[in-house]
Amino acid sequence: MFSAAFIQVVPSDEIVRRIASLQGRLTESDLDAVVIVQTPDLYYFTGTTQSSHLIVPASGEATLLVRRTLDRALAESPLEDIRPMRSLSELAPALALTGVASGRVGFELDVLPSARYLDYVERLSSYEIVDCSPIIREIRSVKSEWEIGCIRKAASMLNDVSSLMAEVFYVGMTELKLAAEVEYWLRSSGHQGQLRMRSFNSDLHYGTVAAGPASALPGGTDTPIVGLGINPYIGKGPSHQPITRGMPIVIDLVGSSNGYIADQTRCFAAGSLSEHLLTAYERSVEIVKVLSKAAIPGVTGSELYEQALELAKDLVSTCASGTRVSFVAHGFGLELDEPPFFARGWNYPLEEGMVFALEPKFVFPGEGAVGLENSYVVTPGGGECLTTASEELIFL
Amino acid sequence: MFSAAFIQVVPSDEIVRRIASLQGRLTESDLDAVVIVQTPDLYYFTGTTQSSHLIVPASGEATLLVRRTLDRALAESPLEDIRPMRSLSELAPALALTGVASGRVGFELDVLPSARYLDYVERLSSYEIVDCSPIIREIRSVKSEWEIGCIRKAASMLNDVSSLMAEVFYVGMTELKLAAEVEYWLRSSGHQGQLRMRSFNSDLHYGTVAAGPASALPGGTDTPIVGLGINPYIGKGPSHQPITRGMPIVIDLVGSSNGYIADQTRCFAAGSLSEHLLTAYERSVEIVKVLSKAAIPGVTGSELYEQALELAKDLVSTCASGTRVSFVAHGFGLELDEPPFFARGWNYPLEEGMVFALEPKFVFPGEGAVGLENSYVVTPGGGECLTTASEELIFL
Repeated sequence: MFSAAFIQVVPSDEIVRRIASLQGRLTESDLDAVVIVQTPDLYYFTGTTQSSHLIVPASGEATLLVRRTLDRALAESPLEDIRPMRSLSELAPALALTGVASGRVGFELDVLPSARYLDYVERLSSYEIVDCSPIIREIRSVKSEWEIGCIRKAASMLNDVSSLMAEVFYVGMTELKLAAEVEYWLRSSGHQGQLRMRSFNSDLHYGTVAAGPASALPGGTDTPIVGLGINPYIGKGPSHQPITRGMPIVIDLVGSSNGYIADQTRCFAAGSLSEHLLTAYERSVEIVKVLSKAAIPGVTGSELYEQALELAKDLVSTCASGTRVSFVAHGFGLELDEPPFFARGWNYPLEEGMVFALEPKFVFPGEGAVGLENSYVVTPGGGECLTTASEELIFL
Repeated sequence: MFSAAFIQVVPSDEIVRRIASLQGRLTESDLDAVVIVQTPDLYYFTGTTQSSHLIVPASGEATLLVRRTLDRALAESPLEDIRPMRSLSELAPALALTGVASGRVGFELDVLPSARYLDYVERLSSYEIVDCSPIIREIRSVKSEWEIGCIRKAASMLNDVSSLMAEVFYVGMTELKLAAEVEYWLRSSGHQGQLRMRSFNSDLHYGTVAAGPASALPGGTDTPIVGLGINPYIGKGPSHQPITRGMPIVIDLVGSSNGYIADQTRCFAAGSLSEHLLTAYERSVEIVKVLSKAAIPGVTGSELYEQALELAKDLVSTCASGTRVSFVAHGFGLELDEPPFFARGWNYPLEEGMVFALEPKFVFPGEGAVGLENSYVVTPGGGECLTTASEELIFL
């Protein structure tokens, strides 16, 4: 009776290809099956985020066991074998039904809470439980044409950020008031609101709006700019500090479409900006240009990371002590922290279809931060830019 | 150099009392120490959310090991012993330094990812690692005067929801557009934005804005009302559906202050509302009144749950088939899903100072949902209401 309201968003051929790709990797990795329970992974492999267990055997048909709501899962997912699950005791028999009565079974151990893991270990005592998250993350890191289309739409949500800033900004407004305006603009144009991150203790509210000294503060997150935040519980993002004349303003935003996201940073100045901040912004634009061109299949994230630091080095060395380049490049998709990563030791080669956000930011303690960020897809000719807002630093 | 920007929010005497209370429970539970790593728990016991490990031995001084950023943790937390930690290999020596060289050590196994758990098991091979989350959750469930003050402030953020609705609502607007207006209003008045939930796969964006048939749809979340959502990846909350004349509108919102939250639902009608929906709303108000009065120390959540169902039974039985009361009552604080819970089998007695949100909602498939929600603190005289917005159902 409800099915008219629920729609399938992820195309059937996507789901078929994703499951097949996963099964190929299971065979290679000597895994007999995987059991998937985390929301973004469930959406990726089934098209639904209803509370479920997805069993994918190395060969044969996948089974989706739905705790709730079955009607909704049936409408949203193109999988053939979707069934209700009333109790976790049904999991072992369901695994056996897919032909896997013993052997090595993968779970998403990077996100699965330990107490649940220990419970599964007990319930599935005839199986060896191992971590399949590296396989899942690797498959998800290479995007299809359909996914890139979603990401382009997500990016287009951020196109007119300069017009918005011209409209809503005034000298003296707080970072938080500016964030409220920016977030309202995104939500009104259909933003999903909630962002999802895979790493433990990680979350983000639309992105980061920060200005002046607050944008240069260090903090506990894996982002180039942290922000002061409105209290130590949040500990990042906008604060109650007013944005005054001469401050740089960093608007780092995440757009969304069909669950997919895109990441972009643009810089503004309240009236004027010191020469060295302008120079640093130009350098950031240059690093993004060079690095994105170099991001071809086969290059590793580690190589690109070293190249970025090299391109920033002379500028950092001529600036006041404490100045640093905070370089982060990360993949994204359904989550904001997907592979690839451009970081020391990330020695995996880029592949065509991977997407990444490139954000070299220069941080001047006591003054502020500046930097550009674009999202790209890896092509044989280098990174193709998906975020297309004007890159000019705008004086407001 | 940064410390001027960072402030201590949680009072020193709160932290002292909380650590002492935890140490009391460790001794009772035959635990030699706990290691705390999850953001809300870190904030509760230290006042900071910087990336850290908090070691609390059963007796003696607690140690906060900060991966980053030390300056920030030093400013935000009143703890005496705060030190940098460069590598996880420093954890075992630090435990030994607090006097715990072997024995039973508690971790938050309800939230700690399995891969990290397995890593700790290996690194701390001379210890037995056990789950200390029930102890932590129990301590956190009883609020101090200071915490109740924060919750009152969080609740007061939601006071003028009726005026806001009168100002922004128009027949034909989509649920999403209405959500954008409501969220903008909250964010502009200083809302922290990001909400945190403890349960795996759980998140929420400010609350739930839903109207008409969409508000009656079932879904995968532990909330009385789910909503259609803007796509199956989000799977809850507002959708692109327009709100038309005769629809009930449910505005379930979470206010915030100093990291603490308060939960409130108010109901509106677009023009008019069917008699049976009005009757159900009145019944919801009545159930809230009776239940909150009955919520005295010593009563169990299970008893109150059965009482709520009893109070709804005759009304549900006279309505069209499919009508149901979706009754949820849950604690909250820094997270939205804290104990106590009013649910079958929750046989723990309420204690003075516990807070809970009471939300009996009546769901009419194909028509919509109605219901009231207030937040309360347990006192010897029953639940004292913390959410003070007018309870009248308003016709817009």
